[in-house]
Amino acid sequence: MPGTLPSAIVFDTFGTVVDWRNSLIEDLTEYGNGRGIHADWAALVDAWRQAYHPSMQRVRVGELPWTKLDDLHRASLDRLVAEHGIAGLTEDDLRHINLGWHRLHPWPDSVAGLTRLKRHFIIGPLSNGNVSLLTNMAKFAGLPWDMVFGSDLFGHFKPDPETYLGVAKLLDLPPGEVMMAAAHNGDLAAAQKQGLMTAFFPRPTEYGPLQSRDYEAEGAWDYVASDIEDLATQLGA
Amino acid sequence: MPGTLPSAIVFDTFGTVVDWRNSLIEDLTEYGNGRGIHADWAALVDAWRQAYHPSMQRVRVGELPWTKLDDLHRASLDRLVAEHGIAGLTEDDLRHINLGWHRLHPWPDSVAGLTRLKRHFIIGPLSNGNVSLLTNMAKFAGLPWDMVFGSDLFGHFKPDPETYLGVAKLLDLPPGEVMMAAAHNGDLAAAQKQGLMTAFFPRPTEYGPLQSRDYEAEGAWDYVASDIEDLATQLGA
Repeated sequence: MPGTLPSAIVFDTFGTVVDWRNSLIEDLTEYGNGRGIHADWAALVDAWRQAYHPSMQRVRVGELPWTKLDDLHRASLDRLVAEHGIAGLTEDDLRHINLGWHRLHPWPDSVAGLTRLKRHFIIGPLSNGNVSLLTNMAKFAGLPWDMVFGSDLFGHFKPDPETYLGVAKLLDLPPGEVMMAAAHNGDLAAAQKQGLMTAFFPRPTEYGPLQSRDYEAEGAWDYVASDIEDLATQLGA
Repeated sequence: MPGTLPSAIVFDTFGTVVDWRNSLIEDLTEYGNGRGIHADWAALVDAWRQAYHPSMQRVRVGELPWTKLDDLHRASLDRLVAEHGIAGLTEDDLRHINLGWHRLHPWPDSVAGLTRLKRHFIIGPLSNGNVSLLTNMAKFAGLPWDMVFGSDLFGHFKPDPETYLGVAKLLDLPPGEVMMAAAHNGDLAAAQKQGLMTAFFPRPTEYGPLQSRDYEAEGAWDYVASDIEDLATQLGA
């Protein structure tokens, strides 16, 4: 409920804190130019992200054993590079490109907003990324997390309950004292179902021209903000 | 080997980064005075710490199932309060006293040294404390960790190999790119056995008058420093 403050706030990361699409398109375009490999990198990035949910679903239904996101990303990349007819990439190139997900830039309000929130609350990512991805991303982007909740700590991807409840357990807090913050209504619905508080702010350009949803709050979230700085203001931080 | 740099440095925490003994004695003395409960708090703190290794050993040999350090501390506290004849403590008092391990002050060089190291390396605690203890301690003491490696992530206490190797796995690094830093030769010996790099610096007043060892490096450690600031200097940070 508004007015009630959480003890900890965990943030969805891809899209919510960092701008994966523009970061990857820029990173791969620059890398491709340096290597003399030309391709429609934006199309590759969009297809790569479209493979994200289906790849995690294969783990969720047991078609694959637990597989960390870096490895799901790599399997999708290998398939898509072939499908898009991108030639000339070595194993080192593919490894570098796959680690592009560790080199994502924050949205303009993210670092300032998180820095304010950190003074008052425990903050961390709760992401489908693995700990190494999220830790490297935090170093790269300057994200001032207190603790990094990667999906490999739980052996589950969101929206599995083990992720939301796992954060509460590791922090030794009742779920109602942990707030999930995300630009995705579906993530918040799953967190709320487990008893967490919720905060929404939109990232309407996350998917570029492919964006089709999450323009506004679609649930009874505890806080609705315009971005992380505004969330900090609403929380008195 | 000296000259070789790690990618990540993990720190033992109690004694190595924070001064648990003086912090707890001050904390409990002040709390006892406020509550009008007088006791030899220094004796309680020393006995409490002496119960630390035996309590973890009960988990290690399977006499207890996995139990996080907060709960081991609490069981030891309940026993010692009775043994020391300290009367008048309520359940709230005992809970507050037990969380004293979350409110430990850093040694004078810790925050400055870690802040320098963080600019060049991934840094985190690798402690027998649980994630909530270490996260709260970091907020209290201003420890600028990138990631918090609590023993509850592994379901094992040091010196079990699962802890040292668990850090390398979560960071997706070869063990040889992870350095264990500690004021305890035994911790470093166990880490080195698993292929980690090692750094030692002494904390000769950690145990007060009960200190009996770890005055100097007793193994072929990669780095031997006078404190964390000196370690940062040796590592070019």
